[in-house]
Amino acid sequence: MVTTTRVFNFSAGPAVLPLPALEEAQRDLLALPNVGMSVLEISHRSKTFEAIIQECEANVRKLANIPENYHVLFLQGGATTQFSMVPMNLLPPGAWADYIVTGSWSSKAVKEAKKVGAVNVAFDGKGENYVRVPRADELKLSKDPAYVHITTNETIHGVEFHELPDVGDRVVVADTSSHMFSRPIDVTKYGLIYAGVQKNLGPAGATMVIVRDDLVKKAAEYRGYANLPVMLQYGAHAAEKSLYNTPPVFTIYMVGLVMKWLVGLGGLEAMERINIRKAEKLYAEIDRTGFYRGHAAKDSRSRMNVTFRLPNEELEAQFVKESKAAGLDGLKGHRSVGGLRASIYNAFPEEGVDALVSFMQEFEKKNG
Amino acid sequence: MVTTTRVFNFSAGPAVLPLPALEEAQRDLLALPNVGMSVLEISHRSKTFEAIIQECEANVRKLANIPENYHVLFLQGGATTQFSMVPMNLLPPGAWADYIVTGSWSSKAVKEAKKVGAVNVAFDGKGENYVRVPRADELKLSKDPAYVHITTNETIHGVEFHELPDVGDRVVVADTSSHMFSRPIDVTKYGLIYAGVQKNLGPAGATMVIVRDDLVKKAAEYRGYANLPVMLQYGAHAAEKSLYNTPPVFTIYMVGLVMKWLVGLGGLEAMERINIRKAEKLYAEIDRTGFYRGHAAKDSRSRMNVTFRLPNEELEAQFVKESKAAGLDGLKGHRSVGGLRASIYNAFPEEGVDALVSFMQEFEKKNG
Repeated sequence: MVTTTRVFNFSAGPAVLPLPALEEAQRDLLALPNVGMSVLEISHRSKTFEAIIQECEANVRKLANIPENYHVLFLQGGATTQFSMVPMNLLPPGAWADYIVTGSWSSKAVKEAKKVGAVNVAFDGKGENYVRVPRADELKLSKDPAYVHITTNETIHGVEFHELPDVGDRVVVADTSSHMFSRPIDVTKYGLIYAGVQKNLGPAGATMVIVRDDLVKKAAEYRGYANLPVMLQYGAHAAEKSLYNTPPVFTIYMVGLVMKWLVGLGGLEAMERINIRKAEKLYAEIDRTGFYRGHAAKDSRSRMNVTFRLPNEELEAQFVKESKAAGLDGLKGHRSVGGLRASIYNAFPEEGVDALVSFMQEFEKKNG
Repeated sequence: MVTTTRVFNFSAGPAVLPLPALEEAQRDLLALPNVGMSVLEISHRSKTFEAIIQECEANVRKLANIPENYHVLFLQGGATTQFSMVPMNLLPPGAWADYIVTGSWSSKAVKEAKKVGAVNVAFDGKGENYVRVPRADELKLSKDPAYVHITTNETIHGVEFHELPDVGDRVVVADTSSHMFSRPIDVTKYGLIYAGVQKNLGPAGATMVIVRDDLVKKAAEYRGYANLPVMLQYGAHAAEKSLYNTPPVFTIYMVGLVMKWLVGLGGLEAMERINIRKAEKLYAEIDRTGFYRGHAAKDSRSRMNVTFRLPNEELEAQFVKESKAAGLDGLKGHRSVGGLRASIYNAFPEEGVDALVSFMQEFEKKNG
């Protein structure tokens, strides 16, 4: 028998999407109303798509109150491509950039940046297996870096900055992939923000980049910039409003539906309240008896990616297996951390958190 | 009133898709059978997606009889990213590459290649406004180029190679974006083939790359290769079977559905027969009286992108307007060529060609 019941999807990304967004996409998949073509078939130069991308951008701007001197771009290649584009555009010859390393993703960002220019690692949490964000007194920022790179939520280790560290007047570049729009964000504190959309913003296939116009202009003046592949120039994408070449039309359409859902929910403040409630329920259960142990230090715990361990690896394997059978999918932790990881992004339903908490209690009773 | 009737979509890409593929995607959009999640929500590391991408690749290999020493990759960034990746990977320092220029796209490929290394333009059709492919005696190939780049179908000018020119034992790199799988292809004649999938293979958001393994291996040995952004290394994508980072899951799923449709239709020979029939009908009407004039020379006419003119620009504008009202959408030619363009890709229904031919006859009667 073929079943089509939806399970609780704790995947770290691509991840669960809001049901109303999926339902609208399904309804219109053969033909958009009054257009006569599927969104999968429309030209990116058509008025139909123009309206879609403009509404999407308008809602992004509205949600985060983004000033006009910032571009909102939809690119391809994921955050990993940004690991290279950021230094190629913002790190001129002879300069250096500061990187704050709090997990696997910021570590990969350093690796790619070093291919382009000089990097000063201002903090590296690797020695402690990436359990926390740095204290202010640990941050070894250099005097005049081109920018400070920060990964504001580490998906694999479940480590999140709850406040942006004080970096003075240095330009902040942030990879916000796995918690973008899970809480309000003051864009004016950043020079550039990037996020693979496949966690909180839509399905896989696009990267949102929010970048200050003066940085784009300055980049265009660097020696060697004209010889960058055009697809790696922020300036080319900004000038063409993400339409330098064929963009991922459907992914942008889906991001638009998710943004509409977020606006309807009451925006980022409302979303944050829900996310705090979901995360607190889950961490409360983790802390209840000591049977479960959180990976991240308490002040660095991610509201999106809840990483935790059980007393031993056998129990962890059993937990993964039994939870999956109970309709709780995707709880196995990343191999580099081990244990369990519950990704509870914006669209993850609170009932799913309740179901996991109940399951954890039952599991502890039987095996504790 | 909201209408959902599908029109005839002559768009140059993103373009019309096979209805059975759209219908299957629509049916399963909330939850794949027995998976409990939408294909828009599944992890790219899940067994579900593994099965999807493997079946897609298997059908690609079956359709074109691709030998095992070729990788089939699904990347992002469109053909424009390949304009850079090709020379970055295949054009070592001190070497040069030959480029055959037959339209806007090959011209753009040259521009990006020149940022990376030396280019010898072996033919340039610009002086004649790109109306044809070169004759054998016009092709000024160099003695020992790293590769010969060719754009086998020029989407904007409607110029198609019906046979690969004889380049001896030189390595051929081909941009086949706008006619990939419209006819049989002997992959062993090429070192590397790339195609943005949004014309004949799926919706926008992925690029198919078919590349010979020895070229990937050789690239990895070039001085400077290790300092390429990892996302621009064929080697990284080949080693991880297109899963180095999060791929465009849904686009690959849709390509899989289109490949299944092609296999069901009888493969590329069957597809070519249909495409020849559709193109011949349309060109026959263009040639019937002289009221319409084809842009491309007869031996270079594209079966996919049929470019033609009317006696004057006023009539062309009127034709675009009236045809759109008659449910024939997307016929306006690219601004650089003017006139009309009917893109009749694999999935474009023959009834649509018949409808256009009838419309052309009526239009000529009224205005000829």
